[in-house]
Amino acid sequence: MGKISNTDIAATRRDNLERLLNPASIAVVGASSDPTKAGSQALRSLSRFPGRLVAVHPRETEIQGFPCYPSLKDLPEPVDLAILAIPARHCVQAARDAAARGVGGIFIISGGFGETGPEGQALQDQLADVCQSTGLRLLGPNTSGFINPHRVCVASFVPGVDQLGAGRVAVVAQSGGVNLSLAFLLNRLGEGISLAVGLGNAVDVNSADVLEMLAADDRTSAIALHLEGVPNGRELFDTLRRVTPRKPVVALVAGRSDVGEFAVSHTGNLMGSHQRTVSALRQAGVVVVDSTDDLAQAAAVLSCTRLPPKASTSFGLVTGQAGPGLLIVDGLKSNGIGVPELGEVTIKGVQSLLPPMTFVKNPVDTGRPGPSFPRIVSLVASDPVIDAVLVFGLSEPSVLDPVAAVAPARSATGKPVLFGTLGMPADLDPALMALTAAGVPTMLSPERLVLAARALDADARGQWRLSQGVPATYTTRPQLAGAFDEARGKELLASYGIDTPQRRLCEDHNDARRAFQELAKPVVVKIAADDIAHKTEVGGVFLGIQHEAELAHALASLSRIPTSTPGRVLIEEMASSGVELIIGGVRDPSWGPCIVIGLGGVTAEAMVDSSVRLAPLANADIEDMLEGLRGKKLLDGFRNLPRCDRGAIVKVVQALSRLMLEHPEVAEIEINPVRMTRNGALALDALVVLATEKPEQGRHA
Amino acid sequence: MGKISNTDIAATRRDNLERLLNPASIAVVGASSDPTKAGSQALRSLSRFPGRLVAVHPRETEIQGFPCYPSLKDLPEPVDLAILAIPARHCVQAARDAAARGVGGIFIISGGFGETGPEGQALQDQLADVCQSTGLRLLGPNTSGFINPHRVCVASFVPGVDQLGAGRVAVVAQSGGVNLSLAFLLNRLGEGISLAVGLGNAVDVNSADVLEMLAADDRTSAIALHLEGVPNGRELFDTLRRVTPRKPVVALVAGRSDVGEFAVSHTGNLMGSHQRTVSALRQAGVVVVDSTDDLAQAAAVLSCTRLPPKASTSFGLVTGQAGPGLLIVDGLKSNGIGVPELGEVTIKGVQSLLPPMTFVKNPVDTGRPGPSFPRIVSLVASDPVIDAVLVFGLSEPSVLDPVAAVAPARSATGKPVLFGTLGMPADLDPALMALTAAGVPTMLSPERLVLAARALDADARGQWRLSQGVPATYTTRPQLAGAFDEARGKELLASYGIDTPQRRLCEDHNDARRAFQELAKPVVVKIAADDIAHKTEVGGVFLGIQHEAELAHALASLSRIPTSTPGRVLIEEMASSGVELIIGGVRDPSWGPCIVIGLGGVTAEAMVDSSVRLAPLANADIEDMLEGLRGKKLLDGFRNLPRCDRGAIVKVVQALSRLMLEHPEVAEIEINPVRMTRNGALALDALVVLATEKPEQGRHA
Repeated sequence: MGKISNTDIAATRRDNLERLLNPASIAVVGASSDPTKAGSQALRSLSRFPGRLVAVHPRETEIQGFPCYPSLKDLPEPVDLAILAIPARHCVQAARDAAARGVGGIFIISGGFGETGPEGQALQDQLADVCQSTGLRLLGPNTSGFINPHRVCVASFVPGVDQLGAGRVAVVAQSGGVNLSLAFLLNRLGEGISLAVGLGNAVDVNSADVLEMLAADDRTSAIALHLEGVPNGRELFDTLRRVTPRKPVVALVAGRSDVGEFAVSHTGNLMGSHQRTVSALRQAGVVVVDSTDDLAQAAAVLSCTRLPPKASTSFGLVTGQAGPGLLIVDGLKSNGIGVPELGEVTIKGVQSLLPPMTFVKNPVDTGRPGPSFPRIVSLVASDPVIDAVLVFGLSEPSVLDPVAAVAPARSATGKPVLFGTLGMPADLDPALMALTAAGVPTMLSPERLVLAARALDADARGQWRLSQGVPATYTTRPQLAGAFDEARGKELLASYGIDTPQRRLCEDHNDARRAFQELAKPVVVKIAADDIAHKTEVGGVFLGIQHEAELAHALASLSRIPTSTPGRVLIEEMASSGVELIIGGVRDPSWGPCIVIGLGGVTAEAMVDSSVRLAPLANADIEDMLEGLRGKKLLDGFRNLPRCDRGAIVKVVQALSRLMLEHPEVAEIEINPVRMTRNGALALDALVVLATEKPEQGRHA
Repeated sequence: MGKISNTDIAATRRDNLERLLNPASIAVVGASSDPTKAGSQALRSLSRFPGRLVAVHPRETEIQGFPCYPSLKDLPEPVDLAILAIPARHCVQAARDAAARGVGGIFIISGGFGETGPEGQALQDQLADVCQSTGLRLLGPNTSGFINPHRVCVASFVPGVDQLGAGRVAVVAQSGGVNLSLAFLLNRLGEGISLAVGLGNAVDVNSADVLEMLAADDRTSAIALHLEGVPNGRELFDTLRRVTPRKPVVALVAGRSDVGEFAVSHTGNLMGSHQRTVSALRQAGVVVVDSTDDLAQAAAVLSCTRLPPKASTSFGLVTGQAGPGLLIVDGLKSNGIGVPELGEVTIKGVQSLLPPMTFVKNPVDTGRPGPSFPRIVSLVASDPVIDAVLVFGLSEPSVLDPVAAVAPARSATGKPVLFGTLGMPADLDPALMALTAAGVPTMLSPERLVLAARALDADARGQWRLSQGVPATYTTRPQLAGAFDEARGKELLASYGIDTPQRRLCEDHNDARRAFQELAKPVVVKIAADDIAHKTEVGGVFLGIQHEAELAHALASLSRIPTSTPGRVLIEEMASSGVELIIGGVRDPSWGPCIVIGLGGVTAEAMVDSSVRLAPLANADIEDMLEGLRGKKLLDGFRNLPRCDRGAIVKVVQALSRLMLEHPEVAEIEINPVRMTRNGALALDALVVLATEKPEQGRHA
């Protein structure tokens, strides 16, 4: 093939990914008639594939009834997908042949690449080169492939997966094994899939590519995403911000604990920071969950229904049994989901349908469901304070028809109505089929109903935050260089509109005495030296200096600390008391500039209580960060502490965000502490690390 | 019936509970031939009951083919169980008739008792009286009853439950609806039940009664317990301590969030403190979970297998797929479960069975399972560092026979081997049946396998702590009376061996100056007055007094604070710096004397980081409390803080525990803070509230 322009190749790569995952024609390279071989299993898995299927084998002319050609170069026409069931060492040549013959994409079954060491890595790098230079797409290597039930295409060697039903949930998993696990879990929930793909080493096709494709796929209504390490975080983040408004995305991120060594052996990826990955996904409007079970269930729900973007959501609950109802309300409230008291009109309406003494404020506890059950559900759904309705009722076919109970409310109000139930299979299965046919999301336990509500809530809130937009314009500023001490750091902060205490940088003791006269007392006197990072630890900070004598004592003590700039001190007015925060910026190798907020002090640090988001970020994201702090009560006037001005926090964070974006040479910046006084936020210290320096690890990062 | 002694009635009550829940004969009161009536449904539900079944109706002589009598008094012979399908207002008379005729127990279907208000409460109280005076047992009211599949006894009006299989898990639920939910969830897991009972208002039969009975029930191997409010906590605690060594108990406690109003409407019980309930259960050796799904799954696992009591446990994992394996290891480590590196011999043995570059340290990632899979599982199980083995493999009948993969390891080592899998039902269901038949606990997702490990781990650790015993001997002490200021509080602590600072209680300024001479400087000077509870808030504490002039200034300031004992001050040597804890005792109305440990300071308080246990407690319980603190890192030399002597903490807690037990008149005691210095634990303040006083709410309670 001739030289291709960058624009052309981007379009070719998109087209070829579509061809790879929605193929009309497939070649199996390394096809075999030996049933124990992968090449034979691959052919067998495709036995119901309705498109053109050919085999590639150096010597055969026909295998399992399919025409056979010596190499991909020898195909009479190009195919959309070539499945390589050949050893790793032959895959590079096959990829070149594929590209030369206009194949859309290849899927490599075998392992033996980047996950095994330098030799495999070299092969993997060559494959990447072929893809980058030709536009050929590569799925894997080191994955069990993909299943596209709408195309009846099973590009996978695992038995049984050809029985997976077609549906509206797409699975995009880093791992082939997790991809299949999710497909099986969805199947157990009665849910079909639109596509289930395991990315493996993701040498070429990565999750961002597939997500972008699925955003435009009419057969996909929700996406279940599984991630291990994320090497190109910022690309994924930007993609997800575009995808989630079109299709809800639910994600599971491996690596809460330290599983690094095993993870590297698995796909060759480093895990990165779990907190940053989860936070970035949340910021991009993704619903993040903690297990494959929850991932399948939440994606199934969101493939049926979605709330409009909303800053917070309120659920109504109608339950036929009080005990499960209590567990559901408990779960909703524990997860910060609103269960507001119903309006007066609703309450009166419901009361007229139920015996006296029944609890009807929300939840509505009907006792054993009766004929009024559907009308009660409709009344609750009609209440303007309610965004969505949860209904729970154990299976009792003689008194409760689930579809009749929920369908009228849904069609009358357009609000999501979710159903939770349990029962013996003989009773329950017909009801489940009817509910599925009616498009009603159904959950088989009280807590799964709560999970469904959490998914709807998180999706609606995430989309609302995303809709708030981020500050858009940044100016270019002259690049910073040289060493940053506290005084210079504070000047930089001040230039971004962050308040700092009145202060004087003094070169000698005479300077210091003059400054002391000018400033309001008490003051703090600190050593000012480029070569001292941790002032407190060397005895370089004196607080609460009121009198000349104390000043003299402090200056004398400081002058005994060895530095390259003896006598240099910073004198600052003392800030009034208040809650302290740590606000910083770090530049993550995968996610780019990030903002971190934590509570100040060693206790908060020991409890690992911090929030992180990517810059730029919306004010709504900053509120979300603060809400995510375990100790957030401290901000709102806890005990005798002054109430913090959240607007002032937002201002500091937005300033730091702008600073990180306008100064890519800043590797890390930390204000520790930001003192929240009654007059706003005051930066009491400043640490600035430029990229050319060896960056120090951020405390809360 | 004549007068009965207390011992007799206790034995009668036990026997009658056994008769109620394992009946050989049943009467249905309010039996009906109208199929919409509860009395008709109750009879129908019992259609397969193999014992004697009779009906009670004022006018009929036969209903649904069963002989019918006008009242329970008229029965030709006593029955074990009478089911009352009659309105609430008739139930008291029926209960009297039942007791008079020697019925074992009654189950009331209808509501309309304590949960509905004063009138219902009066009926409920009368029922309680009948039970207490006669030994008749009462299940409910306000429950859907119970199912005993071994007896083919369905004392419940919910359809389908007669199809529940007999098995080894017992369900004891506060709520009838949750009881049925759990039975259905167990059924979905392929698990049979030995008994499933919903307690409802628990006027007579409560969870402790049923647990005690089940401890001795040969057909029950594990118990799933659901609790809402617990009115008699200490009785339940003592019962559970006896039960859990014999049968593993898994529990779900409603009420994490504030659901009080709805809960009261449900069973009339107050919810109490969720933290105290969960902590008491944990202390009694119960495995506490967060959902009905987890409750059913964990009980199912523990009904198959149990680890011996152990202070900590270590799991090996053999996985056929790396991605799910990574999720499993991640889940184990996140939950603090050991996944140690396998021994050298094991690693070499496994390596000889797998291709090079395979990860074998733990987990063992076999890649797609091959013929060596069972031998690998056996090798891992044989490793002495491993207590139990988890195996995960997607369903691939052609390459992996699950029973063959795990059974040899289990029988060779006697260690638990758990299997996790997923697949299409056609492939999977035969394997699941074979696994169930072989008694291998099987979980259908990676995270459910983690849950199973968590259940085994929590059970083994709980039993280990329970096996450590608690300090047994307490002396009676003279009852305390009168007001407690800080000085008297510290004397009380000192009398229990708790270290306090050197100090002098001074009645006037001359006293104070003398004391200042004698004590090591610096000192702290505090106001000493019965009538001031919060010294700091009134400016009653001066720290770091070094010189006479500072002392004079402090005394002058203190003398301006109005109190009934002007001039009275406490002068103490200042403690060296260190981490501060809050350690206290409270007397819970349900659970009795409790010990609370929290980290000191407003940040820890805002983050609600505390642990609670019941007194008396084992040293192992105290270690468990400290491990449960989110900020526990602070204890172990975090940043520049000194490492805390955990033995010194244990000593303080045991002293407070003894104090609470020996002085039942102490309603609350709080040491805030306990300063952890390099020399041990020092009580820097003491608050003592006697029961006769109005108790103040403990900060961390």
